[in-house]
Parts: sequence; C-alpha cells; structure tokens
Amino acid sequence: MAIEQMIKEMARKVQDASNDLATLSTAAKNSVLSDVALLLMSEKEQIQKENQKDLTAGREQGLSAAMLDRLELSDKVFESMVDGVNEVIGLPDPVGRISDMSRRPSGITVGRMRIPLGVVAMIYESRPNVTIDAAVLCLKAGNGVVLRGGSEALHSNIALAAILQKALHANGINPDGVQVVDTTDRQAIEYLLQQEESIDLIIPRGGEGLIRFVSQNSRIPVLKHYKGVCHVYVDADADLEKATPIIMNSKTQRPGVCNALEGLLVHRDVASHYLPSLAEEFEKNGVTMIGCPATRSICPQAMAAKEEDWGTEWLSLNLCIKIVDSVEEAKEYISLYGSKHTETIVTENYTTAQDFLSSVDASAVMVNASTRFNDGGQLGLGTEIGISTTKLHSYGPMGLEELTTRKFVVYGTGQVRN
Amino acid sequence: MAIEQMIKEMARKVQDASNDLATLSTAAKNSVLSDVALLLMSEKEQIQKENQKDLTAGREQGLSAAMLDRLELSDKVFESMVDGVNEVIGLPDPVGRISDMSRRPSGITVGRMRIPLGVVAMIYESRPNVTIDAAVLCLKAGNGVVLRGGSEALHSNIALAAILQKALHANGINPDGVQVVDTTDRQAIEYLLQQEESIDLIIPRGGEGLIRFVSQNSRIPVLKHYKGVCHVYVDADADLEKATPIIMNSKTQRPGVCNALEGLLVHRDVASHYLPSLAEEFEKNGVTMIGCPATRSICPQAMAAKEEDWGTEWLSLNLCIKIVDSVEEAKEYISLYGSKHTETIVTENYTTAQDFLSSVDASAVMVNASTRFNDGGQLGLGTEIGISTTKLHSYGPMGLEELTTRKFVVYGTGQVRN
Repeated sequence: MAIEQMIKEMARKVQDASNDLATLSTAAKNSVLSDVALLLMSEKEQIQKENQKDLTAGREQGLSAAMLDRLELSDKVFESMVDGVNEVIGLPDPVGRISDMSRRPSGITVGRMRIPLGVVAMIYESRPNVTIDAAVLCLKAGNGVVLRGGSEALHSNIALAAILQKALHANGINPDGVQVVDTTDRQAIEYLLQQEESIDLIIPRGGEGLIRFVSQNSRIPVLKHYKGVCHVYVDADADLEKATPIIMNSKTQRPGVCNALEGLLVHRDVASHYLPSLAEEFEKNGVTMIGCPATRSICPQAMAAKEEDWGTEWLSLNLCIKIVDSVEEAKEYISLYGSKHTETIVTENYTTAQDFLSSVDASAVMVNASTRFNDGGQLGLGTEIGISTTKLHSYGPMGLEELTTRKFVVYGTGQVRN
Repeated sequence: MAIEQMIKEMARKVQDASNDLATLSTAAKNSVLSDVALLLMSEKEQIQKENQKDLTAGREQGLSAAMLDRLELSDKVFESMVDGVNEVIGLPDPVGRISDMSRRPSGITVGRMRIPLGVVAMIYESRPNVTIDAAVLCLKAGNGVVLRGGSEALHSNIALAAILQKALHANGINPDGVQVVDTTDRQAIEYLLQQEESIDLIIPRGGEGLIRFVSQNSRIPVLKHYKGVCHVYVDADADLEKATPIIMNSKTQRPGVCNALEGLLVHRDVASHYLPSLAEEFEKNGVTMIGCPATRSICPQAMAAKEEDWGTEWLSLNLCIKIVDSVEEAKEYISLYGSKHTETIVTENYTTAQDFLSSVDASAVMVNASTRFNDGGQLGLGTEIGISTTKLHSYGPMGLEELTTRKFVVYGTGQVRN
C-alpha cells in the first residue's frame, strides 16, 4: 500500500509538472539540456562514486563481466552521454509546429498542431545511461518522464536523475517533471502500469520477457519492441557484388543488436554459384551457417536447421540460410518468421524491388541496403527512444516527433454549423 | 471453449485476408465499395425483413421508442448508408502515399510509406448502419474488419455483413476480410480482446461503460472516446455579437452529441451586461441554466450548480455556467472539468487567442467557432470512424488516414553502415 501510494503520488506530480513543460519555449528547453551537459561533466566524479556502489554490489551478486560492463559509467560513457545531450539540443523542436492548414467550406481555418504526449514512463534494464538519453529526449519533446531502471543500477540512476532535476530547477522549472522510482520492489512496476490517469505512454526497454510483462499488465499504451528477426533476400536478379557487403555488414557489424541479420534467403537460380563464395566470407568472419537441406547440398559445412531455428533472434554470429524458388516464397517466409522489424531485398529488377517495398510488412523495408540502417539516426530522426514493431502511433524508430501527437486548431471568425 | 475457438479462428481468417486487402489498388477497393452501394439498394427488402426480426424482438423485450428508432433500417437510413459509401469512394486513398523522402549522408534514400493498420475490430451498440459505415472506411484504408454489433441488432448486422462479403467475392477478393461475430454471448467480446496476434486496433463505439470495459480488458490498443464535456469561454475582449450564435449553435443545434456545449465560462468584466440578454435566448430555446453563485446573482432564474454538476456530460439542454476572473481561471477550470474533446474561446484579443490555442489540452481547440465543428467532415478528414480523446496514434476525429500507419522505405544502391 505504501508503494502504491508513492507511485500514484509520483505519477500525479509528474503530470502536474508536465503541463509546465508542455508550453516551454525551445530556448528554455535547450537551456535545461545545456545545463544537463554541464552538470554531467562537473559532477562526474560524484556520480561515478554512486556507480561504484552498484558495481561493487553487482560483483558481489556475481553479475557477468558483460553485465558489469553495461553497468559501468566510465569516462567514455560520460562523453557519449554529453554528446547525446548536445545532439538533442541540435534537433528541431516538433512542439507547436502547425501542419495541414486549410480553409474549410464553412469558412473556418483548420490546422494540426504538434503537442507533447504528456507523461512518458520508461522501464529499462541495466545501462544507466538510458536515464539521461531517454529523459533528455522526453524533455525536449515537452513531456514529463518517470524513470524505472534496473535494480542493479539504482544508485547510478538516482544520481543521474538528480542532475536532470537540478537542471530543471536552475532554469526555474518545476523539477517534478523528472521522477525516478527509487525502489527496487518489482511491485512498483505493476502500480506504475496502472496510472492511466497520469501516464500517457509506457516504453519498456529490455528483453522480450520485460516487454511482454509490461504489455500484458498495462492499461496504458505501450511502445512494443519485441525482437528483431531481420532478413536479407538475395533475388535471382541480384547484383552479387552488392549482396556480399550488405549481408556481411548486416550480420557481422554488430551481431548483438536488433537490426542485425538473422536469416538469409537466396533465390535458387543464384544459390549454387553464389553460396560457396559467400561461405568463404562467413568462415573468415566466424559466421556459423545453419541451412535448409538445399543449402547443405551446396555448402555441406552448414549445420542442419531445425524447425525452431527459423525465426530465431540469434544475437550472435549464427545465421539461418534458406533457398527459395521465388520472391513470393521469400515474402511468405518473411511473413511467417519475420518480426516486422527490418527486411531487405537485393535485386536489380525494378518491378521486384517495388513489389517487395510495397508488400512486405515491416517497420523498415529496404532495397540494396544493410539492415543496420534501421536506426533513428541513420533514417534521419536524430536520436531514437526505441523501435516500435507494432503499428499503432508509430512503426519503426521513434524520435522526437514520435514523442508528440497532434491536436486540431480552429481559427474562426464567428462561424456556426449549419 | 467453443466460442473462444470460433473467435480465434475468425480473427486469424481476417488477418490472412487482410494481407490481400493491404495491396489492393484504389480502383479495386472502389469497385468493391460501388458494389456495396448497389447491393444495398438491390437487397434492401431482404435486409429490411431481417431488420424486422430485430425490431419485433426489440418490441417484445420492451426497448424504448428511441432505441427502436435507432435500430430501424428505414428507407431513409438506406439512403444515408448509400450516400456514405459513395462519399468514401470519393475520398483519396492514403495507402501507398510516400512522404518525407530524403537522401541521407550514407547515400540511402529514405521515405515513409502509408500502409493499412491490418485488422480493426469494431465493437458497437445499437445502430446497425455502423456495420456499413465503419466497414467501408476500414476496407478503403486496406484493413480487414471484425464487427461485433449490439445483440438486439444481430439479424440486421449479419444481413449487412453478407452484403460486404458478397461485394468482396464479386471482385475476386477473399470475403474473409469482413467478419461479423454472429453470437450475442458477451464472452465473445472478452475473447476478441485477447486476439493481440491478429487484431491491431479495437474501436468501441457506445456508452462510457462499454469503452471502459473494453480498454480495461484489452491487450490490443483501443481507440478511446470517453465523453465530450465541451466548453465555450467568453473572454473580456469577446465580440458578444459573435459569442451568442456560437454558444447557441454549440448548445442547441444537436444537444445529444459529444461535441455539444456542456459548460459556459464568462469573464467577470462582461458577465453582468451580457448574461441577461443571453438568458433570454436560453429561455426561448429551452436551455436550462445551472450557475455558480455569481451567475445566479445576475440571473436568478438559473439553478444553483452542485459540485458534481461541473464537468457533467448532460447530452440535454442543461448548461453549466461559471463566471471567471481571467483566462487563466478559465484554463484551469477546463483542465479540471474538461474531457479533452473540444474547447472554444470567444475573443478579439490576438494574444489571448494564441495563448488559448497553444496551451489548452483538447483534441480540438478553437477561436470564435462553434464546438460543433469538431467532426471529421467539418475538419476536412471526410467521414470519421470515431473521435479519440487520448493522445496515442490519433487525437480527435479519425478518418481514413488515421486507419493507416507508416513504414520506412529505404532505396539503396549497395550501402552498408560504417
């Protein structure tokens, strides 16, 4: 009950403060962000001391080296946080932008004005730098933000949130606009998910388990990003000189991320002469081939794919390979095993390319480009707060604009309706 | 279990069919809609026979005259359904439209392509014509649709849905794209709300109870339209010649709808000389004044407002009236008692008007215009499928475009990421 009350109170406070944030000028918001960048540098040592507490506790609890690495607020992480803040300062402010202005037959003039969503709650695991990255984007879009990071990063998150509140306060703005849930009690998340009167959007960032838990327990809209099972389809009309760098970049540049390649589809007409040379590249780069029988008849070194391998998000150097008879079969495979994240075709055929672009259902559909381009920065949104793989509100990377919505504004001169 | 299986199967069938609908040309979709209009006229008598079954059962169950009126598919209702279908044929097709094309520093060209949402489920009460109105909008936007109308209109809804399926079939399109839940078992709704694998959006249309039930039991995004508590604020700088027609039109043109006026705020500086003349208009038109003490000291005929009256959606000729000291007080009142639907200011003051437009949080904010303009047709969207009073995906009337989303399309020539 104490926690329920605390969460309710916290959500209400952010909501109140978000009304002030919604009407701030761009200059005022950028001034807050500048102060965040300055404070990050001037209070670095203090924050790192708090981070040490989390690291020590993490070591005692036996966290893996990889987990500890993600938890550490090193000097390099500080630099990247400051760079991130400065990048957001440079992004155009979507709030107040009016589009689609038109005069209606009644004589009223109608437009659509971008406004903040209100209050965004972030629920995330590990990496404490998300506290800064996410909050800064929410603030620039005029939203209040509730932060609930991983319990192993609690001290770090509280210290980072204090910076944000200090920067708001220094600019004469209600610091309640940023709140951090300072308990590791998991019930806090459940209560947070019930504050539909105060919170407008929940963004979970973490494993599929977290996202499923959040979306099944929330009455508030949730930005869902389940997983990235991305494919490259090498068409019969592919330029194979383009295919190899696209496949290798998609698979190996950063295998552990959501826009990395997990499944390769190759048209039967090119498979027998293309796959052997590709297999050499794979071997050089440590990629493990897991293939269909037709693949294995060409490349016997490939492991035999089991049914459950298709559609797996490996996040490693494993790669499923299937030979298909047509672009239709490729599209059917993608529809069955894809995750609506990123799908690429390699082809020189104009009609096949246009057909693939129009008919494949994914947040980003590409021709002759690496799947790794599905990223807010690469696609031109600036920093992103996540990638939505469901279609409501936003499909694909969410930047500043996706943290806003539009209301109708009507300029009349006394009109009434007939 | 039988119902659960039936609903699951139905949702899966619509999802399959929606893949075909998504890639239909505008001409093909318009051809289906033309056939719907023709079939509505040629099969009118048969449908009216089915409608008679519902009317007879309704009379036996003692439905009110108003309910029976809403249930009846009269010749006039048929005409309006046909007009509605023809209007949707005339609307531009949002699907396939590519916007925001730009060349990125990497050399890829990025755009955002409008695509259908997928499958929309409509859950509605009474009025069987919604079956046609809603389904036709969903189909034009390339979506599959599941319809669950009121149990008292079951025969009518099944007959109308058959028209839709016939029109699809006649055009060589999988008729599974339209499904009607042909049971009155309320459990069917609960199962429908669980089909998050197949259904992309739920639109409940009906009373607040239905909408709350749906949004509290659904794992699928819900278009929420709770209620319309709309206000007009008459500023100190108002042109009172404009104020009176705006207030009278907002209140009396159609008092039972969501964009009708429910609360009037009047600045103290104009109240004493303005309210008496306005009260005469109210009396002539049967409007019942429910006022604050200051209002009653000017107009003693006003009833005393109780605390629970403020913010009430009357849907009748009742009107709450409160005298305020400033535009700030008006805005605070709206923030407290409004429902984020429609808010109007009457003023000649440029700065006050701009401030009101920017800072009031509602799906439509207006200057010197009747609240009745918050309607898809009036605002330029064409026909609407509902008005959202929450901010995710869509805020305000939802037209064809709001039944779609955008995916990223990337045109590369072999680019990889650095």
